[in-house]
Amino acid sequence: MLNVSVLGYGTVGSGVVEVLTTNKESIAKKAGQEINVKYILDLRDFPGDPHEDKVVHDFNVILNDEDVQIVVETMGGVKPAYDFVKACLEAGKSVCTSNKELVAKHGAELIAIAKEKSINFFFEASVGGGIPIIRPMINCLNGDEIEEISGILNGTTNYILTKMSKEGLDFDSVLKDAQDKGYAERNPEADVEGYDACRKIAILTSLAYGKQVDFEDIYTEGITKITDVDIKYANALGAAIKIFGSSKKVGNDIYAKVAPVMINGEHPLYSVNDVFNGIFVKGNMVGDLMFYGSGAGKLPTASAVVADVVEAAKSLNANLPMIWENDKLQLADIKEAKQRFFVRLSGNAAENAAKVESTFGKVQVVEAGVENEYAFITDQVKEGEFAQKAEQLGNVVSRIRVDF
Amino acid sequence: MLNVSVLGYGTVGSGVVEVLTTNKESIAKKAGQEINVKYILDLRDFPGDPHEDKVVHDFNVILNDEDVQIVVETMGGVKPAYDFVKACLEAGKSVCTSNKELVAKHGAELIAIAKEKSINFFFEASVGGGIPIIRPMINCLNGDEIEEISGILNGTTNYILTKMSKEGLDFDSVLKDAQDKGYAERNPEADVEGYDACRKIAILTSLAYGKQVDFEDIYTEGITKITDVDIKYANALGAAIKIFGSSKKVGNDIYAKVAPVMINGEHPLYSVNDVFNGIFVKGNMVGDLMFYGSGAGKLPTASAVVADVVEAAKSLNANLPMIWENDKLQLADIKEAKQRFFVRLSGNAAENAAKVESTFGKVQVVEAGVENEYAFITDQVKEGEFAQKAEQLGNVVSRIRVDF
Repeated sequence: MLNVSVLGYGTVGSGVVEVLTTNKESIAKKAGQEINVKYILDLRDFPGDPHEDKVVHDFNVILNDEDVQIVVETMGGVKPAYDFVKACLEAGKSVCTSNKELVAKHGAELIAIAKEKSINFFFEASVGGGIPIIRPMINCLNGDEIEEISGILNGTTNYILTKMSKEGLDFDSVLKDAQDKGYAERNPEADVEGYDACRKIAILTSLAYGKQVDFEDIYTEGITKITDVDIKYANALGAAIKIFGSSKKVGNDIYAKVAPVMINGEHPLYSVNDVFNGIFVKGNMVGDLMFYGSGAGKLPTASAVVADVVEAAKSLNANLPMIWENDKLQLADIKEAKQRFFVRLSGNAAENAAKVESTFGKVQVVEAGVENEYAFITDQVKEGEFAQKAEQLGNVVSRIRVDF
Repeated sequence: MLNVSVLGYGTVGSGVVEVLTTNKESIAKKAGQEINVKYILDLRDFPGDPHEDKVVHDFNVILNDEDVQIVVETMGGVKPAYDFVKACLEAGKSVCTSNKELVAKHGAELIAIAKEKSINFFFEASVGGGIPIIRPMINCLNGDEIEEISGILNGTTNYILTKMSKEGLDFDSVLKDAQDKGYAERNPEADVEGYDACRKIAILTSLAYGKQVDFEDIYTEGITKITDVDIKYANALGAAIKIFGSSKKVGNDIYAKVAPVMINGEHPLYSVNDVFNGIFVKGNMVGDLMFYGSGAGKLPTASAVVADVVEAAKSLNANLPMIWENDKLQLADIKEAKQRFFVRLSGNAAENAAKVESTFGKVQVVEAGVENEYAFITDQVKEGEFAQKAEQLGNVVSRIRVDF
């Protein structure tokens, strides 16, 4: 029997205990032995909970118990999760976490400690919820050099954009609906401003290139400026507006960003709707891959954590190598990235057409029956150059990157 | 430096050498050491090939060379691949193969030998070409009990069905086009009769339940009876006809089959077109997952083989456990499986409506402007019961399973 302890008995933590209980027998078979939850660390008590007798309030009870070989960290946030996880690893306990902030910030260091101690630090659930993506990145794509990762990495914003698109509603009313349904937090900033997706693309990019990508370096733009009128134009184009976390390798430069983007039906992520996540990966040998599933939610996320626990159990005293060095990966300046842009200008065609052509050359005009506006899609243009030209035009109502 | 040898220098085998050469540096970093191709076994010579000096005709040169630690098997077929692979494993060499016939037939035995010898037998490329699906099944879904696997597992038939659907062409002319393009073999039987997909779903089902699924036990129906008129009805329904290899767990029964099926836009595999493959997996905790990519082709398939080589290099003297026992998994009788059916009858509505209602009860009538036919979709009905009733009707022109 192998003893596990869970740090944080919130949504994901209680999901982990539920998955371990529901599938106890099949998990024991796959792990080679029974997995027992010995302690659950939380500040709260849980009277009436079937596992209430396992709840402890002092982290040291877990840290100092040599019978606890695997620790699950589902507290979220960097403090005190970082201190707890580091202490567990240094004490020779493998750690499995769903904590994207922790992994994005301290992944390289924690991986190095696990290696030194011949144990494992796993974090499948930190990106894409239940979707297997971290382990495929580490163990399945080693014949390839990664050219692009583009992911719908946040279920809340994908739900909002899908609902705006299908029902023609504006951002604020859909956000309220999402909050009422529990899909969005009362303080929705981390989701709608793209900060959550930013941590996740930082993790995926670090794994793709084996070096530390600092999420603070990633250009991040949320969905709060997307309006129902933008959606109307997208629908007229047969396109969907999604928010992507993406990184692309162009020559020796690696660009990363989080931003809304228009994609059409040719893109493998076009049909990824509602709270689902999808991650597109392009390798120089394998070509296009896509991974799809539930990017959040109690049981899907817990399923990924438990899969990590089983892997940790199968390799209790052997570090499974992965490359994520502490050296910083210098991202290229986003201003140099080339991109098509969808642009809306105030004023009609007569007022704008000549000005636009003299600024951008021939463009693709977009008609969606919106009065007193002129909308178009540019050719590929450098981000920095676009920003200058847009300022020069002076009457830009909105602009969205286009990926077709 | 680690020495690899390749058995079979055909499409996939030469692709493996190409991937190892093209991405030599990044592969060395990930594998922890340089990977060198020492021998290539083939009956033919390859004058002018950059690797011609590595070609040998005698398998024993490879078997008896203790410097060869990993063997890649890309010959295809059971004989002599089985003898060669078994001999390599018994000699302590890890083996990575793309050979679905070999894995479906002898997977359990070869996995057991690798375990006994503390080496590895890997076969990521045997299903889904370049798509990571075998390793996710083994290492990422262990928190779940698998309830369903449904895969578009054969690129040739998906190309044919996509082209029939988009261009309204009949089966024979599209098959000829596919043969001219090299997407279909001159003898297309293994693809169009579903035999290839059958091996692949046998492998996935064996891994899902940890026991041997004999492909001979799987009900297999190809696409040769699908006509342009069937496609016309599918289009009228907003549905696509795909050929699925699938297995489903209903209570304690596991049903497996290969057959054409109608799916609609709600299904994650609806947009998987042309030569692409997609595999849908449903777990009792994680819910719906989908994996998408190139299911065949030289470099995508080779990419998966090389990823296996890197994993084998990272764990040279340690067996990474997987559960696929030799015990046979008894599949449930397909006659007991419940299913909706799309049915076309000769004769018009006036002649058929009453007869159909008395046989199947209320049905969903399907209109596609086809003269002198009556088409409908049944409710859920057991396969065996449907077959009896269809025979009773006496005028069935075609029937296709419906998955919505």
